Amino acid sequence: MLVEGRACRAIEWDATNGCVCWIDQRLLPFRFERRATKDPEDLARAIETMAVRGAPTIGATAAYGLALAWIVDPCRFADHWLPRFRGTRPTAVNLFHACDVMERAVAEGLRGRRLIELAEDYAEREVRANRRIGEFMAECLARGRRRILTHCNAGWLAAVDWGTATAGIYALHRQGERPHVWVDETRPRLQGARLTAWEMLQEGVSCTLLADGAAAWMMARGEVDAIVVGADRIARNGDVANKIGTYALSLAAREHGIPMYVAAPSSTFDMSLESGRAIPIEERGAEELLEAEGMDESGAFRRVRLAAEGVDACNPAFDVTPFQNISAIISEQGIFTPER
Amino acid sequence: MLVEGRACRAIEWDATNGCVCWIDQRLLPFRFERRATKDPEDLARAIETMAVRGAPTIGATAAYGLALAWIVDPCRFADHWLPRFRGTRPTAVNLFHACDVMERAVAEGLRGRRLIELAEDYAEREVRANRRIGEFMAECLARGRRRILTHCNAGWLAAVDWGTATAGIYALHRQGERPHVWVDETRPRLQGARLTAWEMLQEGVSCTLLADGAAAWMMARGEVDAIVVGADRIARNGDVANKIGTYALSLAAREHGIPMYVAAPSSTFDMSLESGRAIPIEERGAEELLEAEGMDESGAFRRVRLAAEGVDACNPAFDVTPFQNISAIISEQGIFTPER
Repeated sequence: MLVEGRACRAIEWDATNGCVCWIDQRLLPFRFERRATKDPEDLARAIETMAVRGAPTIGATAAYGLALAWIVDPCRFADHWLPRFRGTRPTAVNLFHACDVMERAVAEGLRGRRLIELAEDYAEREVRANRRIGEFMAECLARGRRRILTHCNAGWLAAVDWGTATAGIYALHRQGERPHVWVDETRPRLQGARLTAWEMLQEGVSCTLLADGAAAWMMARGEVDAIVVGADRIARNGDVANKIGTYALSLAAREHGIPMYVAAPSSTFDMSLESGRAIPIEERGAEELLEAEGMDESGAFRRVRLAAEGVDACNPAFDVTPFQNISAIISEQGIFTPER
Repeated sequence: MLVEGRACRAIEWDATNGCVCWIDQRLLPFRFERRATKDPEDLARAIETMAVRGAPTIGATAAYGLALAWIVDPCRFADHWLPRFRGTRPTAVNLFHACDVMERAVAEGLRGRRLIELAEDYAEREVRANRRIGEFMAECLARGRRRILTHCNAGWLAAVDWGTATAGIYALHRQGERPHVWVDETRPRLQGARLTAWEMLQEGVSCTLLADGAAAWMMARGEVDAIVVGADRIARNGDVANKIGTYALSLAAREHGIPMYVAAPSSTFDMSLESGRAIPIEERGAEELLEAEGMDESGAFRRVRLAAEGVDACNPAFDVTPFQNISAIISEQGIFTPER
């Protein structure tokens, strides 16, 4: 999608220089910086430190990383690099899908340039899936619904291009419609405030930021027509693991009869899990709540402490929304309504 | 309650120096600074700028402010000072109660030192009410319930002393019980992270900070036994206006069968309003979401920007929780169960 008017992806192969390029999302919205590497360890660290994040982008990054790993360090591909990438984040299943795809390809004899092509193909499939999701979702949202609330960033930064939750919004916008997006700021990492709002500004879509705790009240006030979120892992029964705060949204949506859509490519489904109870939930460090990072008046990045010294925090990064609270899951294969 | 081991109130009369003293809550938890004044305008500004906040503390501050106003500027008491104080904040009804009390006293001929005594009495009545609330609440919470979630700051900073929502927690703690408090950080102003967690640390009560969006998930995980919040205004039918995010909590509490208690002195009830629909909700500036203030590594206060330039935000400061979602309202007069 657009950055300063030019098309861009969250992660891609630079054929001219033979390296993988990604956007360091930790610097957004203040600085737009692209990084490039031929070293798989840089990509593993990019996932781990959340320089790249979002389930489909993580998957594509791992695919590129394992292609590079085979090229620069083939002897340690199975013993070091596969477990290295699989251990970077625990919740998003796309990561494990991507690692499985690359492992199988190497086992089947794919080598070098062909592995890069496979990773490119993996990323391209995600983008095609997002476009299809966008078409299906625009259909759902076209039924008179235009004020759309979203949580975290399930935009193109999270999903290589187009985004999952945002694909329908971008599709409508490019058709000349005028959706309005309520963006949950999404504590503690503020992906809504920092990433989704920035994406909307870049693309010219009208949006307004909300405190996470205000979303239910906006629904009660009748100011929300639909909710669209992404997913990090979906169990066989339709339970959805997504950014912490999604479950609370689903309760308010149900209370007010507001449709809640989950947008996710089929790589997000984990058919090995019967229900959401089996999804491992990443717990992250307390400092994400105790400190905030932003830009000071001089334009410098600065980290400030928000709470008293000695305060502890509990920081589950995801929660599980039961399928009963979800109106439909939208993938590239269609609109799926969990059975109640 | 305790600050560095010494008893302290959010607002009080300093008889030795003949001035009103308050804690500048905007500097907490980083700096504990008490201010003193004989000028009513300082107190009006303290309310307006949220140097003092919390419905009962606001009421007591207005009472002291109007006593000072009569002493230093009696000619403008009715035309200037009464509307000045009534216009400082729109949602907390205690403010209007306190202004009514002082207006009536002046009309009845109370003057000078007697007005100060009346304000002291007003503040003391709030503290006594809180102690009674604490006794009633400890009773509710003593039924095996010990992991208590609270939102915003309905502690002693908000309510002169003891607090409203925290009164039962402090009562249990001083009885030698060991309650654990889940503290919602409470965006956008982070009163939970900055004030409630600080209060708990000072008093030695065990507590853990949570992102507001994590509260519902903690309930789903079975880690919350009760919710206790304060109130800024309560309508005749039991609808409660409180800090934004309270309504979302009430939906999750209902879903999981967790009791949700509202603690508020009777000065918080507004019997002139039939339901919560009539309560005016303060909308505050977008900058509360777009920026964060904290302490940098050098110990200096610093304001950092969190979102991209050009992003707009919607910032309702309160929401209304319908009485049906509330287990009981606890005032100094007893435990009141709204009729369903």
